[in-house]
Amino acid sequence: MSQKLDVAVLGATGTVGQRFIQLLAAHPWFRVAEVAASDRSAGKRYAEATRWVLPGEPPTEIANLTVLPLDAAFKSPIVMSALPGDVAKTLEPTLAAAGHLVSSNTSANRMQTDVPLLLPEINADHVRLVDAQRRKGWAGALVTMSNCTIVGTVVALAPLREFGIERISLVSMQAISGSGYPGVASFDILDNVLPYIGGEEEKVETEPQKILGALTQDKIVHLETRISAACNRVPVMDGHTVCVSVGFKHKPTLAQIREAWENYQGHDLARELPSLPKPVITYSEGADRPQPRRDRDAGGGMTTTIGRLRECSLLDYKFVTLSHNTVRGAAGGAILNAELLVAQGYASHVMDTLEGAQTR
Amino acid sequence: MSQKLDVAVLGATGTVGQRFIQLLAAHPWFRVAEVAASDRSAGKRYAEATRWVLPGEPPTEIANLTVLPLDAAFKSPIVMSALPGDVAKTLEPTLAAAGHLVSSNTSANRMQTDVPLLLPEINADHVRLVDAQRRKGWAGALVTMSNCTIVGTVVALAPLREFGIERISLVSMQAISGSGYPGVASFDILDNVLPYIGGEEEKVETEPQKILGALTQDKIVHLETRISAACNRVPVMDGHTVCVSVGFKHKPTLAQIREAWENYQGHDLARELPSLPKPVITYSEGADRPQPRRDRDAGGGMTTTIGRLRECSLLDYKFVTLSHNTVRGAAGGAILNAELLVAQGYASHVMDTLEGAQTR
Amino acid sequence: MSQKLDVAVLGATGTVGQRFIQLLAAHPWFRVAEVAASDRSAGKRYAEATRWVLPGEPPTEIANLTVLPLDAAFKSPIVMSALPGDVAKTLEPTLAAAGHLVSSNTSANRMQTDVPLLLPEINADHVRLVDAQRRKGWAGALVTMSNCTIVGTVVALAPLREFGIERISLVSMQAISGSGYPGVASFDILDNVLPYIGGEEEKVETEPQKILGALTQDKIVHLETRISAACNRVPVMDGHTVCVSVGFKHKPTLAQIREAWENYQGHDLARELPSLPKPVITYSEGADRPQPRRDRDAGGGMTTTIGRLRECSLLDYKFVTLSHNTVRGAAGGAILNAELLVAQGYASHVMDTLEGAQTR
Amino acid sequence: MSQKLDVAVLGATGTVGQRFIQLLAAHPWFRVAEVAASDRSAGKRYAEATRWVLPGEPPTEIANLTVLPLDAAFKSPIVMSALPGDVAKTLEPTLAAAGHLVSSNTSANRMQTDVPLLLPEINADHVRLVDAQRRKGWAGALVTMSNCTIVGTVVALAPLREFGIERISLVSMQAISGSGYPGVASFDILDNVLPYIGGEEEKVETEPQKILGALTQDKIVHLETRISAACNRVPVMDGHTVCVSVGFKHKPTLAQIREAWENYQGHDLARELPSLPKPVITYSEGADRPQPRRDRDAGGGMTTTIGRLRECSLLDYKFVTLSHNTVRGAAGGAILNAELLVAQGYASHVMDTLEGAQTR
Repeated sequence: MSQKLDVAVLGATGTVGQRFIQLLAAHPWFRVAEVAASDRSAGKRYAEATRWVLPGEPPTEIANLTVLPLDAAFKSPIVMSALPGDVAKTLEPTLAAAGHLVSSNTSANRMQTDVPLLLPEINADHVRLVDAQRRKGWAGALVTMSNCTIVGTVVALAPLREFGIERISLVSMQAISGSGYPGVASFDILDNVLPYIGGEEEKVETEPQKILGALTQDKIVHLETRISAACNRVPVMDGHTVCVSVGFKHKPTLAQIREAWENYQGHDLARELPSLPKPVITYSEGADRPQPRRDRDAGGGMTTTIGRLRECSLLDYKFVTLSHNTVRGAAGGAILNAELLVAQGYASHVMDTLEGAQTR
Repeated sequence: MSQKLDVAVLGATGTVGQRFIQLLAAHPWFRVAEVAASDRSAGKRYAEATRWVLPGEPPTEIANLTVLPLDAAFKSPIVMSALPGDVAKTLEPTLAAAGHLVSSNTSANRMQTDVPLLLPEINADHVRLVDAQRRKGWAGALVTMSNCTIVGTVVALAPLREFGIERISLVSMQAISGSGYPGVASFDILDNVLPYIGGEEEKVETEPQKILGALTQDKIVHLETRISAACNRVPVMDGHTVCVSVGFKHKPTLAQIREAWENYQGHDLARELPSLPKPVITYSEGADRPQPRRDRDAGGGMTTTIGRLRECSLLDYKFVTLSHNTVRGAAGGAILNAELLVAQGYASHVMDTLEGAQTR
Repeated sequence: MSQKLDVAVLGATGTVGQRFIQLLAAHPWFRVAEVAASDRSAGKRYAEATRWVLPGEPPTEIANLTVLPLDAAFKSPIVMSALPGDVAKTLEPTLAAAGHLVSSNTSANRMQTDVPLLLPEINADHVRLVDAQRRKGWAGALVTMSNCTIVGTVVALAPLREFGIERISLVSMQAISGSGYPGVASFDILDNVLPYIGGEEEKVETEPQKILGALTQDKIVHLETRISAACNRVPVMDGHTVCVSVGFKHKPTLAQIREAWENYQGHDLARELPSLPKPVITYSEGADRPQPRRDRDAGGGMTTTIGRLRECSLLDYKFVTLSHNTVRGAAGGAILNAELLVAQGYASHVMDTLEGAQTR
Repeated sequence: MSQKLDVAVLGATGTVGQRFIQLLAAHPWFRVAEVAASDRSAGKRYAEATRWVLPGEPPTEIANLTVLPLDAAFKSPIVMSALPGDVAKTLEPTLAAAGHLVSSNTSANRMQTDVPLLLPEINADHVRLVDAQRRKGWAGALVTMSNCTIVGTVVALAPLREFGIERISLVSMQAISGSGYPGVASFDILDNVLPYIGGEEEKVETEPQKILGALTQDKIVHLETRISAACNRVPVMDGHTVCVSVGFKHKPTLAQIREAWENYQGHDLARELPSLPKPVITYSEGADRPQPRRDRDAGGGMTTTIGRLRECSLLDYKFVTLSHNTVRGAAGGAILNAELLVAQGYASHVMDTLEGAQTR
């Protein structure tokens, strides 16, 4: 792709918005052309509207962009959404209908029947749900990224689907960056654990069935599996660590599981995407791995690291899985989804439709 | 008890030894008369031999004691052991045979058939195993304290034994004080989670069956229950937080569980012990409780705090439990065990037997 | 004092307000009778209006109080103020004029000429400024507590005033509890240092001159000394650590300084106050002390711990000083100030004046 | 340089040794050919001998090297030393005499008269001291890297030398990675500050005079300046933050200082070195910058970030400076020094002299 596609980042001043901007700074296909945020920020220079909380400073070319209001007439064919749920609920479909390829990191529309909930390395084919969106008249598309906590678990389980995943027990130890900014007060988390994250266990117990489900015609047949989750916040900056136990219909051997992970290349349709995790999965032999600080940046923050596979006396096997919650689990994941849309040809119609859309 | 019983603290310079000294400083029944440690420390003033890592400074009267070697002829009727496992394995039985009441915090002898593994609030009657020790000729006694991680879980489950505890899944988030001093390197735990603690899961999966077992004649019939554990270290000073799921033979209602916890007074034989947790259990209504920093010091660090009781989609119920690992889970627990020995009359024989033993 | 004086806590739902309630729970002279807060909280039960962030739960008897609005007609003779600065600015004088003894922890009125800025152990006589308040017609009184960061330094320097304190250089490492709740975001402080605290250096560079000043007639002659401060936030819960260098007019010996600290009993007028730090100062011989986690609770959080006294190659001497910022440096300090007012007889007039004021 | 020079890393299994290996993995001039460590590690595969504490895993090609003993006959022309002080004291000069270019990160030989103490961006000409080494018969050379804490301060002050630096007061807040592995116990530093680091203040108060000194003929005339330091350990992984006050002979304006920093290109001789920090100095306009977590990785961890320049009421100006302690302040700095040796032609003689030395 010799010319880059313009991207509008919505909710650009928040922590996920900042990650979008950081990760898109050197993207081979995309460039940030528009940034938008709530009325409080609209009209200001991005650098002034934003309390930049990532390392360093915002890229100079973005720093000088004027923040647009959320109801602006965006010109970019691609829209990355890090919007609050209530705003996203209606704005994302509106933009998709109007001809944008909307890649959302918000939970608001994830469970809609005709909206794909994508982790391309494991279910890239679900992008075909967009055809249903087209049939109902949308000129663009809306695809969504899953809850960040579930990523390491579903990526670990995807190569094991053939054994029949019946029961999943998971306990998470989640990084504070997952709660945005200002997010978790230091008064609450220093020398402490918070054994509750509002709304999290519900998402963790329901999204995997859709993600791991099968595309049949126009819809996803959810995987039938029972999940029990307990979600905790720990004093870690980035990287969600999850202790998983899993019970199978056809119990594999330890060696079969290890082999499935080692050989896993990810879904065919995702193989050539620039942000595809390389590798998709790393199994660490270290007795005390994965660890968030030491493994979260594997594969540029996109790789899932697994360790400690062993027998479980209640279900079949236990392991620990780790994924970077604001890269693979948020902005990086949504960028990967947008790449999939483009690679699958959904952008061409958009480029024709959208007034002012252009490549550079 | 108008006069106090002398106590020897073995392994007195380590972190658990320091907790013994801190907690015994104002004890109504006991006073620290002797401190002992490895050859490196023996012969020095306690204050010089010890890198005191608890807040403040060691109590003045202890600071000036001379550290004895571990093979000294101890005069104290009560011996608190925070010895390393290999030393404890043989020294604890030797001292018990010689007439001391040995209350150990070490794992070495916990699973011996005739050694009680006591949490007096739930199994004080197990102290009767000492009679078997007497029959084999020991003039004293040896009782042990459980692994610190399991405390919050077994205290929570004890009042629920009537419903038939069949399966327990637990994932711990453990404080760094559990690894002693220097223990966990800051390089390993700052901004990090260590998803492995050597030997811990094995203890956690086997000790509860003995603790929750039934005393019949001369031995403990272990509770038949299956346990699966995953143990993690988190950047918290004190207090082990555990996410528990439990499956029952006769599933109780939520209300029945809450009622069982609220009414729980602890074992009859333990009711008058000075270190009995008051209350034994606190159920916190807070949506995000228990938390280690805010709940570990409940009841002087002896109370177990439970929260978040809710249905589990795999087993029957889930909850979070928390206990102070170096107070209830170590030194405080061993002191409580020693109190039980004294209250049950095991000290009188010792006082007659032990040369030089005296009250003051 | 056989009967306790009623206290109203203003700003009762915030972190300093919570400390007031925690510390007054077992106070020998005072009892909390009224709690007040902003309109958002007024009318609710205290337990419902408050996100209790200290360990455990609020005391039951306070939990059930109804939160009053800030413009209520308070009946308590004593008012503890943890109000926001803008509200305090006018409300504190109004309440003092109306007959309350107002002990404030807010900066708003600290530097007013006729308002004492008290650390009773070092300048209890400054309370005489209240006579000037009376002369201008106030039926009550207003006294203030200093900025929390300066406490450890001025307490350390007070016994050295005879040597002529000319220059003070100080660099603080401050706990996150100093910023209230939610205060510092964990996103900002985990694995980090914030080398700036808004408005702090200005207070630190100007308040000591008044605190260490001399009462002459109706006013305080400020100590003439130059102060340079750099204030930092570090990932510590409680306890402000300060590296101090000091230059004297008449350079004492190291031994003279140590002697001055060891012999320091605090101001005569403060000796019998229940909250007087006991001791006022502790000098720690540890090479690496004082440390916030290990020394902040000395003397119930009221004692200043000093260590590392040594020569300075620029000024005369360097040392490290530490004080608990929300106990000695906030609520505990304001309680001590209120005790001084009562001990100096300022309450009697109030009890006659204030309608409904009573002891119980 | 089309072929790379072989490098031996001594003390390769420690934390600084690991940083050497990490940073040299993609170095344009150097490749790690030999790794050596103490007898405990010698003979093992590097991956087995090393507890790798940096993120990820050691590079595969290094993981398979056999660890050599420290008395091996090294073939590499370049030697990077992260040796313990006592070993370094004699081994480094021995290797330099034998023909190696030794770039040391150890303090043992820093203050030797004919050993350059280099921060090439500010004193690259000091490398000429090597000529004195050659004259006394060494076939190779020995150059040293400064203490990590002083880096941010001397880099900030170097462009200000023209104003006459008379007095420096500095208080550091140092990361735990500075103490190696296992280094600082988490029991000592979680929720805490350690206001003492053994031997640190002495180095900080004496090394800058040599670093900022002037090369005249065969020796360095130390800068005459008085320094007072207080060094603290804080719970931060990487990055030393230092609060500096400085007094000048000819007080510049704020603008002059800012201009000196902005225009600073570093020493002429260092301009083309691959590891030269780019830029050498960044001045951050953020009110609360620099911060270790957000600024330590500037310029790949080699750039010094400065902020908060303001008047000081005791000396002339205050500011905050930050430098990555294990990159710029250790391994990265020593690599830069080795680059300077090569760029200045000191390697050619070595290549002729050293048996088996080769490029690839």
